[in-house]
Amino acid sequence: MKNTTNQNSKGITLRTEDYSQWYLDIIKEADLAEYGDVKGTMIIKPYGYAIWENIQSILDKKIKETGHQNAYFPMFIPKSFFSKEAAHVSGFAKECAVVTHYRLKTDEKGELVVDPDAKLPEELIVRPTSETIIHSAFSRWIKSWRDLPVLVNQWANIVRWEMRTRLFLRTSEFLWQEGHTAHATEEEAEVETLKMLGVYKDLAENYLAMPVIDGQKSESEKFAGALRTYCIEAMMQDGKALQAGTSHNLGQNFAKAFEVKFLDKNNTEQYTWMTSWGVSTRLMGGLIMSHSDDKGLVLPPNIAPIQVVIVPLLGKTEEEKVTVLSVVHNMEQALKAKNIRVQVDMREHETFGNKLYGWEKKGVPVRVEIGPRDVKAGNVMVARRDTSEKYPIALNDLVIKAPEILASIQEDLLIQSQKRLEVRTQKIDNYADFSKKIENGGFFAAHWCGDAKCEAEIKQETKATIRCIPFAQKEENGKCMKCGKDSKKRVIFARAY
Amino acid sequence: MKNTTNQNSKGITLRTEDYSQWYLDIIKEADLAEYGDVKGTMIIKPYGYAIWENIQSILDKKIKETGHQNAYFPMFIPKSFFSKEAAHVSGFAKECAVVTHYRLKTDEKGELVVDPDAKLPEELIVRPTSETIIHSAFSRWIKSWRDLPVLVNQWANIVRWEMRTRLFLRTSEFLWQEGHTAHATEEEAEVETLKMLGVYKDLAENYLAMPVIDGQKSESEKFAGALRTYCIEAMMQDGKALQAGTSHNLGQNFAKAFEVKFLDKNNTEQYTWMTSWGVSTRLMGGLIMSHSDDKGLVLPPNIAPIQVVIVPLLGKTEEEKVTVLSVVHNMEQALKAKNIRVQVDMREHETFGNKLYGWEKKGVPVRVEIGPRDVKAGNVMVARRDTSEKYPIALNDLVIKAPEILASIQEDLLIQSQKRLEVRTQKIDNYADFSKKIENGGFFAAHWCGDAKCEAEIKQETKATIRCIPFAQKEENGKCMKCGKDSKKRVIFARAY
Repeated sequence: MKNTTNQNSKGITLRTEDYSQWYLDIIKEADLAEYGDVKGTMIIKPYGYAIWENIQSILDKKIKETGHQNAYFPMFIPKSFFSKEAAHVSGFAKECAVVTHYRLKTDEKGELVVDPDAKLPEELIVRPTSETIIHSAFSRWIKSWRDLPVLVNQWANIVRWEMRTRLFLRTSEFLWQEGHTAHATEEEAEVETLKMLGVYKDLAENYLAMPVIDGQKSESEKFAGALRTYCIEAMMQDGKALQAGTSHNLGQNFAKAFEVKFLDKNNTEQYTWMTSWGVSTRLMGGLIMSHSDDKGLVLPPNIAPIQVVIVPLLGKTEEEKVTVLSVVHNMEQALKAKNIRVQVDMREHETFGNKLYGWEKKGVPVRVEIGPRDVKAGNVMVARRDTSEKYPIALNDLVIKAPEILASIQEDLLIQSQKRLEVRTQKIDNYADFSKKIENGGFFAAHWCGDAKCEAEIKQETKATIRCIPFAQKEENGKCMKCGKDSKKRVIFARAY
Repeated sequence: MKNTTNQNSKGITLRTEDYSQWYLDIIKEADLAEYGDVKGTMIIKPYGYAIWENIQSILDKKIKETGHQNAYFPMFIPKSFFSKEAAHVSGFAKECAVVTHYRLKTDEKGELVVDPDAKLPEELIVRPTSETIIHSAFSRWIKSWRDLPVLVNQWANIVRWEMRTRLFLRTSEFLWQEGHTAHATEEEAEVETLKMLGVYKDLAENYLAMPVIDGQKSESEKFAGALRTYCIEAMMQDGKALQAGTSHNLGQNFAKAFEVKFLDKNNTEQYTWMTSWGVSTRLMGGLIMSHSDDKGLVLPPNIAPIQVVIVPLLGKTEEEKVTVLSVVHNMEQALKAKNIRVQVDMREHETFGNKLYGWEKKGVPVRVEIGPRDVKAGNVMVARRDTSEKYPIALNDLVIKAPEILASIQEDLLIQSQKRLEVRTQKIDNYADFSKKIENGGFFAAHWCGDAKCEAEIKQETKATIRCIPFAQKEENGKCMKCGKDSKKRVIFARAY
């Protein structure tokens, strides 16, 4: 796959030469993930998983702080459940893993085969999302208005059979969290839906340093079975959009399909109002494509498994070695005491240079180099991964200044991504103009009549979809860039992952 | 299912009347879990899941402290992988969920059916354990002795198709962690295997307050494909054994099957030595059956989602209410500041009495009751869930004493379970005697010749299996209780879950 002629010295293809290959090279060189043995599946390697665990732990805390409790629901869904909500089946049941048997056996030739006697009476679908199985549980749990709201979340693996896969962005199996809630009123469900979208925006911007545009999906892009879908959309370095999180007001569609009813305060039977919302390991793809450069991964300190790496140069004499190690040890302890995630690279079988390249590729925000001469001079060398700046700072100042440096990197990464988003988002009114410009990526705020036909034609002709109808806009009179009909709002068109 | 005539006042069957029903009643009344829509699957409800999250977080920390990193491997395993290790296939591939298709379609009658055109070229097995898929990855990751050891762990869902299921103890899908490591030498692998068994023993005893006997499995009880299996075995209140965790030295069996090789320091190709080890949501079953009583669940403070529940009685006047709430609020904050997991029960639609029963059933270690009269007297009522003791303590002392009370409950629960284990573990030499006594449960330390035939006959005749060959014993000369042949060691026989 790798085209060596296009690579820079560290085995990473230049972004400008082959963006897709650059993305895969970053993942490989930072040791984040690889394809599994079954086509389209992914192994998340320890370093990649550590980033995911940091994202999980931040989000899990926020989910709990907003009143939700975690739970776990079975991953096998009876096939018939999908037929209950008409829109849902067409959206999800088609590309999915189907369990048909529950036993293998050794045949007369000694080969391991599926046992035809162990055919399931009803086929099971491996969850592509869990609304059906969870709402079936809700129908047992909810009887009265006193039982509402029900606010649950689960961290789980999900299967959607994908033909064209790409690590983190689109794999047959992926990891996510899915929140599922039931409420007494439409208003409450709407508040919940928007609240959780806000949590996702906060996660994306303040932890992943990935600015997003929040808004509503068009009818054709909304979740299969939802009343309304809200989303956050991020822009990658190639100007393409990445849907980074969605939050759905499901209305009463699923409540009706799964008989989720409650007696209200007047003792009248009502259907509940449901929501669901999720983000997935896809965020990892967004993270990679937001900040990385031609030298490798770049991680925002807030989610970096290692925030500061210390690479000691031990010197030649035993005395030098002892001195350096003692300084390094004290530094490590002092940084840990400040809750900074620090690692000392003591590997013996790696050259100093390779160590530096290695940590660069892994995107560690701050690298500290220290050798006998530095100790003597009372200095250490500090290298910022994001800007590649490298400068000496006084040994005694490092621990004091480290939190500031990390905060500054976090902030600068967000500002940089925000600038890209601003510069590459433009208002556009002329369709021919749009059709040309979209070739180079970017977000386009255009008037759209609201007709699904225009939307489909635009998609057909330009491969651009409506990413969202952004919240942050004033009504203005305009004309649909495709058909010229009246429009009150602009929507964001972009090509997307 | 529930036999109401046998229940005590709180809807829980007495242990002495119907132990199995008691177990299910505890789970139901404490709201821990329920069966899912697909036979044999389980929904872990929020309160049950919160306990599991506490267990996870304690164990995850220990797994990382011992040098392991988390990762994630795909849950679909190609059928052919199972055929590669002969013992493994016979142990696992037989009762498993088989994915045969990747698409559904709507047929001419408008019904949702499996699309025959979407048949997979090779069937996929939903992981019943991940040795095969992980070792396949190891074969790509490991090239040289410098790459060793590889120490990974994953938290995942597992499927083993079970015909007779019981919540937490045996369900078709369950949650677990599985550690997988590769080493350069047999000795290192053995050290790792025993180290992780020690971590499990620590978890069971010092957090779940569930004493265990650690030892080695007999050949017939060992993991399918392992060289040696070590385990921890706990005794439930009915005297039956629960295998609470296992750790396997896999030797080079899987390394040979999956070609996991490395060049050693002499540049010679060697097979790696592997280990694997796991505990599952089964621990929840052990926890429930270790401590609970006829009033409901009893939780050790170290893993209780709520350690202290405050149930205020607000009084009749507004003034009383304000006073009580202010005291309660301060108490809550002060307990939280001590890292105590505290909850205040402010539910309006529940009587005071029902609240007390409710928290009792949920096993909250310490319950604090406080009303206007208590505030006036400068007292609060403290109720210990484990002993049912209830006594007043000075309002000002509660926050100071709470950690001690919790520590004392934790300790007492362990002591109580330890006593049960000691009292109900006996040496036995006479087989007829054993066959009679085993009917009432308990562990029996008996001599066994080491022959699988004796072991199988004993199992056939008494339903007792060898739980383990305990580490903690001295060699002694004896005769197999079944066949009379010479034996040097006693093994633990028991009926098991």
